Amino acid sequence: MITGKSYIGFSQQSSGSTTYKTINPKLNLENEWVFTEATSEEIDEAINMAWIAFKAYRNISESDRAKFLNAIADEIEALGDDLVQMYCAESGLPEGRANGERNRTVFQLRSFAEMLQSDDWKQVSIDTAIPDRTPAPKPDLRRSVLPLGPVAVFGSSNFPLAYSTAGGDTASALAVGCPVVVKSHPMHAGTGELIAGAIVRAAQATGMPEGVFSNLNSKGIEVGQRLVKHPKIKAVGFTGSIRGGRALLDLAAQRTEPIPVFAEMGSINPVVITQNALEYNGSKWAETYAGSITLGTGQFCTNPGLILGIKSRELTSFTEELAEKIVTIDPMVMLHPNIKSAYGRMKSEVTGQSGVSVLSAPLEVETNYADQAVATVDGSAFLSNPKLHTEVFGPFSIVVQCEDEAQLLEIIENLEGQLTGTIIAEDSDLPNLHTIVDEMRQRVGRLIFNGVPTGVEVCPSMNHGGPYPSSTDPRFTAVGMHSVRRWVRLISYQNMPESLLPNELQNG
Amino acid sequence: MITGKSYIGFSQQSSGSTTYKTINPKLNLENEWVFTEATSEEIDEAINMAWIAFKAYRNISESDRAKFLNAIADEIEALGDDLVQMYCAESGLPEGRANGERNRTVFQLRSFAEMLQSDDWKQVSIDTAIPDRTPAPKPDLRRSVLPLGPVAVFGSSNFPLAYSTAGGDTASALAVGCPVVVKSHPMHAGTGELIAGAIVRAAQATGMPEGVFSNLNSKGIEVGQRLVKHPKIKAVGFTGSIRGGRALLDLAAQRTEPIPVFAEMGSINPVVITQNALEYNGSKWAETYAGSITLGTGQFCTNPGLILGIKSRELTSFTEELAEKIVTIDPMVMLHPNIKSAYGRMKSEVTGQSGVSVLSAPLEVETNYADQAVATVDGSAFLSNPKLHTEVFGPFSIVVQCEDEAQLLEIIENLEGQLTGTIIAEDSDLPNLHTIVDEMRQRVGRLIFNGVPTGVEVCPSMNHGGPYPSSTDPRFTAVGMHSVRRWVRLISYQNMPESLLPNELQNG
Repeated sequence: MITGKSYIGFSQQSSGSTTYKTINPKLNLENEWVFTEATSEEIDEAINMAWIAFKAYRNISESDRAKFLNAIADEIEALGDDLVQMYCAESGLPEGRANGERNRTVFQLRSFAEMLQSDDWKQVSIDTAIPDRTPAPKPDLRRSVLPLGPVAVFGSSNFPLAYSTAGGDTASALAVGCPVVVKSHPMHAGTGELIAGAIVRAAQATGMPEGVFSNLNSKGIEVGQRLVKHPKIKAVGFTGSIRGGRALLDLAAQRTEPIPVFAEMGSINPVVITQNALEYNGSKWAETYAGSITLGTGQFCTNPGLILGIKSRELTSFTEELAEKIVTIDPMVMLHPNIKSAYGRMKSEVTGQSGVSVLSAPLEVETNYADQAVATVDGSAFLSNPKLHTEVFGPFSIVVQCEDEAQLLEIIENLEGQLTGTIIAEDSDLPNLHTIVDEMRQRVGRLIFNGVPTGVEVCPSMNHGGPYPSSTDPRFTAVGMHSVRRWVRLISYQNMPESLLPNELQNG
Repeated sequence: MITGKSYIGFSQQSSGSTTYKTINPKLNLENEWVFTEATSEEIDEAINMAWIAFKAYRNISESDRAKFLNAIADEIEALGDDLVQMYCAESGLPEGRANGERNRTVFQLRSFAEMLQSDDWKQVSIDTAIPDRTPAPKPDLRRSVLPLGPVAVFGSSNFPLAYSTAGGDTASALAVGCPVVVKSHPMHAGTGELIAGAIVRAAQATGMPEGVFSNLNSKGIEVGQRLVKHPKIKAVGFTGSIRGGRALLDLAAQRTEPIPVFAEMGSINPVVITQNALEYNGSKWAETYAGSITLGTGQFCTNPGLILGIKSRELTSFTEELAEKIVTIDPMVMLHPNIKSAYGRMKSEVTGQSGVSVLSAPLEVETNYADQAVATVDGSAFLSNPKLHTEVFGPFSIVVQCEDEAQLLEIIENLEGQLTGTIIAEDSDLPNLHTIVDEMRQRVGRLIFNGVPTGVEVCPSMNHGGPYPSSTDPRFTAVGMHSVRRWVRLISYQNMPESLLPNELQNG
């Protein structure tokens, strides 16, 4: 049952008066449940509980933290069809996607639990003493990590499970000993409440301290602002727009004690396709990319919004084929009326720029459904117009026809930072790709060869992040085991007796 | 020969009109050389050269970069006595210290060169493909790191060699493929010019691209501000005051593209001494700490400025003995008249606070020499007065007499972030120290047992950094091999052909 209340520690509260509902975008109707925004007092109470919980939680054994994470996974699975129905009602995404994302969320939680079985993530280093070194003895020095403290997590609109309440940010922070206070996403507050309940039940069942997790309902931006400004919040995880992420980054930078903000934000995910690839496999790539551009109604942060090639008859054919194929796909609903209207606005703005031609046939779509489209522009127009470099969040891509390789390289060098870049080529191209690879990797966090950027594998080698503005700090990743590095900091012990060292630094 | 010019790439320039001299604090006289502050055009030229150099330098082999670092070390050693004399003339520090710091600087450069022999620093991770995985094949993913780009380095006043022109920040950035633009410290511009010349000769001899290193003379703060604001500077390393570091952090946060600033700033380095340690070894520790507090005229970032104990006859005896012993040490000169006057001002401010008593006898000292001192205050007065928590940069320490262990823990919990913390105890204390260790390590970057915080070992397990404001980001260290992590970011390659992967990610 949905109560519409925030979780402040283990208890549900709703002392405020600001209420809101979520929307079923498919039906274009409000859902039945009424949510109450958390008050300032509730926010402060959640943070103070997190601070007190931190003292206990940071010293709870890794095997007990692993039990907690696995229990969250179990509780999420136990939500069964209720969760799937709620997810679909609040996002318009299909059941298959709901199931897939739930599996991913559960997999992430269990993967972090498994990570805790070893000390590999602790950046351990041991230098034993050299007492007879001259001119001065060398002390015994051992390094490990400590959790930063309570983390504020802002989930995304487009992944209501895997990048939200119990998503990668929450799972990685809880894994390393940081309590988490989630700002619930207003577009899927019901999904958030179900998941928050699962986390709270898991915390209670495994004996975790109250305050290790809270879930704050929010209608506007005030809840998030108060969270980020609070002195007892020590780090922030965010997935969403550049505007939203930058606002939080700025707030955090203005604190008396600045704190790290890891925001994974926008990206247009450039794709370079070579002349050989166009000649030998142009049709295949047009079909593949029609699928990638429209996957999840184009609402992936890794959606390929920019395709770069060098002017040729084959590039023209590829672009036309892509435009033809993309409109054969059934239009799909977007997450929310606001997202649909932003898509329409941004698409019009980009396609209205000088030199841009829309190649795909116009589509008639229902309310909140996206009319996918493909446009094209030449390299000079693209280079000189920063508006064309902005993200159109939705199933849209622009093909840039470059004069020559020099212009292609110039465009790549002048791109803003990107989550991903992709190179599509034939084997015969390999000897000539080194410069493109070198320039592309300077601008992206992940470089894909002969594939699509959509789809972010959860594994140790994944990097999900990239140069600004695709993320706020490219030295960290939001996905994969390495993502715990965002929430821990270094500590060295000098000449510490064995009994006072943490387990991972003791001899043997 | 000192020209007083900046190094813009390989050439020396001085087109500006703002000049300044360094000061010999021992003689209280200006040194002979005249330095010219870099102009805006020179700053931009240096940065643009660094940007162009970056394209080549990032792809130079690690063995060639190691040759460059070793050549810098050789060139610094070849400066011989000229460097030592200049160092002493500009800092007032003794020859022994000059030699020690030069050895440390050279050791750091050679250590980073050695680091480049293996790929351990590259955060390598390889996940091979599972083509038959269901429901979707697993791609081949491999992760490594890339250099961020040109780094601006601000050296410290108190370590003219090891934390300055060719110090840890420069050596670690150059090691991983980042060009460096140094803002020369105005108090030791001559030492800076000698070292910059050594770096430039090494770059030329080993075939490095021009622009890989520049050294900008600066009298005021404008050179540094322009550096940090420039879009082609991609990271900042700083060692100095909280005020200076925070100003750069704020500037970097306000950029269109925010960049990471690693600033290692102030710290009062708390020391806790147990009742048993006072009883059994009070005199020994009083003598040891008299030495540590006055080491380098107290001008170490790890200087122990705060000693915490629980009220007792033995704590009183220890404090009196420390006060007696400290004044038997010959007063030493400070780095600069400005630093001496700041010391006098800060010491007066702290000792003038309510409840503070100065226990050491007043010392008559020559101009620019520091009159070391020890004061004491009770725990309640310390807790309620933030002025007593501020750093007095120089040979000064305050002993806090806590009511009981609860008050001691409250004081520790309320300390600002610190580079180091120290616990002095007897073996019989060990079973009772877990809470103190846990609270102390929350506030510090390095925890020392039965020793002194002064002395920062250069080794893999060292952490030199700590919670704000001791540093701007406790997830990184300024000293040791791990410090390269500040200047590199993650990159993943998905399904990349072997020939396009960097060496460290290729099979076998």
